[in-house]
Amino acid sequence: MASTWSRRQFCGDLLKLIAAVPVTGLAMPVLAAAAPAESDSAIHELVLANRVLAAKDVVDGYGHVSTRYPNYANRYFLARSMAPALVTDADIMNFDLDSNALGNDTRTPYLERFIHGEIYRARPDVKAIVHCHSPELIPFADTGIQLRPLYHMSAFLAAGVPIYEIRDWRATGDKSMLVHNRELGQALARVLGKSDALLMRGHGGVVVAGTLPQVVGRSVYLQINAKLQAEAMTLGKPINYLDPEEDAGGPPVSSYGRNWEIWKHEVEAGCGSR
Amino acid sequence: MASTWSRRQFCGDLLKLIAAVPVTGLAMPVLAAAAPAESDSAIHELVLANRVLAAKDVVDGYGHVSTRYPNYANRYFLARSMAPALVTDADIMNFDLDSNALGNDTRTPYLERFIHGEIYRARPDVKAIVHCHSPELIPFADTGIQLRPLYHMSAFLAAGVPIYEIRDWRATGDKSMLVHNRELGQALARVLGKSDALLMRGHGGVVVAGTLPQVVGRSVYLQINAKLQAEAMTLGKPINYLDPEEDAGGPPVSSYGRNWEIWKHEVEAGCGSR
Amino acid sequence: MASTWSRRQFCGDLLKLIAAVPVTGLAMPVLAAAAPAESDSAIHELVLANRVLAAKDVVDGYGHVSTRYPNYANRYFLARSMAPALVTDADIMNFDLDSNALGNDTRTPYLERFIHGEIYRARPDVKAIVHCHSPELIPFADTGIQLRPLYHMSAFLAAGVPIYEIRDWRATGDKSMLVHNRELGQALARVLGKSDALLMRGHGGVVVAGTLPQVVGRSVYLQINAKLQAEAMTLGKPINYLDPEEDAGGPPVSSYGRNWEIWKHEVEAGCGSR
Amino acid sequence: MASTWSRRQFCGDLLKLIAAVPVTGLAMPVLAAAAPAESDSAIHELVLANRVLAAKDVVDGYGHVSTRYPNYANRYFLARSMAPALVTDADIMNFDLDSNALGNDTRTPYLERFIHGEIYRARPDVKAIVHCHSPELIPFADTGIQLRPLYHMSAFLAAGVPIYEIRDWRATGDKSMLVHNRELGQALARVLGKSDALLMRGHGGVVVAGTLPQVVGRSVYLQINAKLQAEAMTLGKPINYLDPEEDAGGPPVSSYGRNWEIWKHEVEAGCGSR
Repeated sequence: MASTWSRRQFCGDLLKLIAAVPVTGLAMPVLAAAAPAESDSAIHELVLANRVLAAKDVVDGYGHVSTRYPNYANRYFLARSMAPALVTDADIMNFDLDSNALGNDTRTPYLERFIHGEIYRARPDVKAIVHCHSPELIPFADTGIQLRPLYHMSAFLAAGVPIYEIRDWRATGDKSMLVHNRELGQALARVLGKSDALLMRGHGGVVVAGTLPQVVGRSVYLQINAKLQAEAMTLGKPINYLDPEEDAGGPPVSSYGRNWEIWKHEVEAGCGSR
Repeated sequence: MASTWSRRQFCGDLLKLIAAVPVTGLAMPVLAAAAPAESDSAIHELVLANRVLAAKDVVDGYGHVSTRYPNYANRYFLARSMAPALVTDADIMNFDLDSNALGNDTRTPYLERFIHGEIYRARPDVKAIVHCHSPELIPFADTGIQLRPLYHMSAFLAAGVPIYEIRDWRATGDKSMLVHNRELGQALARVLGKSDALLMRGHGGVVVAGTLPQVVGRSVYLQINAKLQAEAMTLGKPINYLDPEEDAGGPPVSSYGRNWEIWKHEVEAGCGSR
Repeated sequence: MASTWSRRQFCGDLLKLIAAVPVTGLAMPVLAAAAPAESDSAIHELVLANRVLAAKDVVDGYGHVSTRYPNYANRYFLARSMAPALVTDADIMNFDLDSNALGNDTRTPYLERFIHGEIYRARPDVKAIVHCHSPELIPFADTGIQLRPLYHMSAFLAAGVPIYEIRDWRATGDKSMLVHNRELGQALARVLGKSDALLMRGHGGVVVAGTLPQVVGRSVYLQINAKLQAEAMTLGKPINYLDPEEDAGGPPVSSYGRNWEIWKHEVEAGCGSR
Repeated sequence: MASTWSRRQFCGDLLKLIAAVPVTGLAMPVLAAAAPAESDSAIHELVLANRVLAAKDVVDGYGHVSTRYPNYANRYFLARSMAPALVTDADIMNFDLDSNALGNDTRTPYLERFIHGEIYRARPDVKAIVHCHSPELIPFADTGIQLRPLYHMSAFLAAGVPIYEIRDWRATGDKSMLVHNRELGQALARVLGKSDALLMRGHGGVVVAGTLPQVVGRSVYLQINAKLQAEAMTLGKPINYLDPEEDAGGPPVSSYGRNWEIWKHEVEAGCGSR
């Protein structure tokens, strides 16, 4: 079996061992050293995702994007609390699903990291998550009008886009608009259900996907769909939405691979942080 | 006659000879060598067209533009499957009208190349074709509201802008939104008829023209016209569209030569891939 | 009197002499040499105006801007037929009020230069003219809804914004949308009357002013006003327009001097030809 | 006490002494020398605020931003009359609350500086003020439709956004749209009351805050809120606005610190003066 026991399995197994070690006192470098190649690659892709989302106006000074730790489902990567366009590899932190920072990392995390932890816990299929304040989403989040897919680039919306009303979930006396604890994060994951996008009343939205390029693509086309649906609604005729079973065109489209190719190129060429 | 037998004619005749050779086994370099000057020039113009369309947001990661092979009506140039903004001369492939790649070219072609092949077959006047996902087109494609020319830059719309509903043409059980085979391409060419632009429900559009600069210009003004018509419709007064016989202003306008001049300049100066 | 007989008067008088010479055969260099300093300065400002208008999306590949010859009311400067963003000093031509090119200049002029010549003839107060295809103007030009000033930056609209319907003025059988002869130019000047802006149905608009910075500022704010008026109209409440006698705020605003300062800076820094 | 008598207190006390000196004849360098570190830092932040506001299209050639003198409530900094995008440290002037320039500074000040002086007099909590012509504000300023907070980034609007109608306050015969004297400035401060934003009919708006980053953030989100509210209103369903007591999310959001971080970075990297 030795010859088929892959490096991937080795790293996975090693990570399970490491995970069994109490988190307190586990130095960040040890965890990072466990699977350097996969981690480095995932971290680099996450930095690019931060910059693409900023370049595409999905996030501005606020909003964040995370990805699950490769080969290890109970950890995720997320930048420390800062503007996404400025994130570098060194700014990425590790979190467990309770959204506690790992490795004695004392840097300030995003207040709303519970969105990420609780969705990763509830949805094993999800590998990447965006939380954003896209202005285009607000008119729908605030009127309760259902977002529906207008074209094949946003076919993933056919699974529904529920609206999270934080007034229904906040503790008595809590008037914050933010998902600032695990309970609010769990409620959000419950409202999301099996959908891939969710709106937050008076706040923004959340998008989930199987890869970072896909979550970035979905976030971009979610806001385009919102803009187009608002425009189409003013024309005064019924809108012919996609059938739920209509296929965007298979992986060439639904993976947003060609979008990722050009967007990555743009931010690497320095066109991203405009 | 020797003195008036031009290089152009020579190349054209040579191409006819080459075309008689069975396509299978015909090496790409041989075909490319047949008319180097015209081909090189057409390929370079096609690369520019890709970049201008990306710079003008007619295409993003998706969408494509083709041109007929110079002096040879049964061949066309189209990039391999990739983001238009990144296309270089080396990425251009050759196709016959059945949309088979020529010259043993094994690179992945665009899945929807049949749009190009079948329109070139049905419309001898067409020398260049754009397929795009311009968001501005979707509200019209999805409501069935007829696009009509609001100003002289889009006078070519007077010939009508039919809507292609892929539900009417897909094989039983096919739920794809894409024009992924010859039959769907032929249906699209039939719906297009003698028009120069067509909308695709839930998807985007197709624009055809006699030259690459013209197809680029028409694509840009098609989306401007869509945006303006949507805005004008919200003002609540009847819209005074162009008469079908009104002339845009002759070739200085209908060729979009001055647009091409500045747009080409912009992408060559590196302003294109924003 | 010699000491008060200024260089300005000298040049003006010299120009009058030159103007008396039959135009045919008058070499361009002679005219240009007559008042080098004023001309050079006016030409340079006109080049900047071309670039600012392109940077502000008032013109794209089409549209043009002219200025009267300094100290000589019967001549005007206008670029040869080309995209405004690319205009340089060497591209500026001289025209008389019949819109004939001066100085044996055989370069191709703009087809619609009669807009300029005929307005300069009819309106001695006008020193600079823009013709543009600003998309924002089209919904108003095509519905006949009156543009009115919404804010102080566009207070000049209080004098009215008439609409030029070329169908009313074209010769029988002429179906062109363009102002391609003197008669159509004269009709346009008549429709303009004492206003400072005019819309052209299915085409665009014309803006006039006392200086190049002012005509550029007015052109920019005309399109902003159109966009805002369309938006305000969708809100469903009466719009509180400026009173005709309300003052924009005197020359600091109505001259658009501070706009010119920053826009000039932008195009000189290379931000203009985007 | 000597050890706890801080540099800050020293400078503050020194400034009070200086303030007791009659303003006439007080040379600018003396005042500037009084608290060099705090002043330099405040001036530099004010220059950045000018540039960020220009980059975000809150101001164009017109509009201005001021800040109170550090440690000295009866003075404020404001650029000389010029386009905000071009402001440098050397362009900042000092004013007292009567909006007289200090230090024998004979440069031309903004005509509407009284907006700043009178609000600083009326509102001790205000440390920074923006006056802008944001186009997005005009449809609301001109229809009287109340702006209300649609999302947490603009929660500060819950305190109300009154509209200043200059027709109600101008002297007889005064037809200017501008706040060109102390009386008009006092009226504006009265209309503002305890709110943090105000619209000016046919003109623009005013935003106030406790810091420069906050006033810049509020100005940006004010215009986003206006745009979104207009869009939401066209969808035809009741809008679910923020409750007055809902909290934006505490200082991480309401200070706009992360916005400032990225916006400052953008203008310092030369992306600001677009």
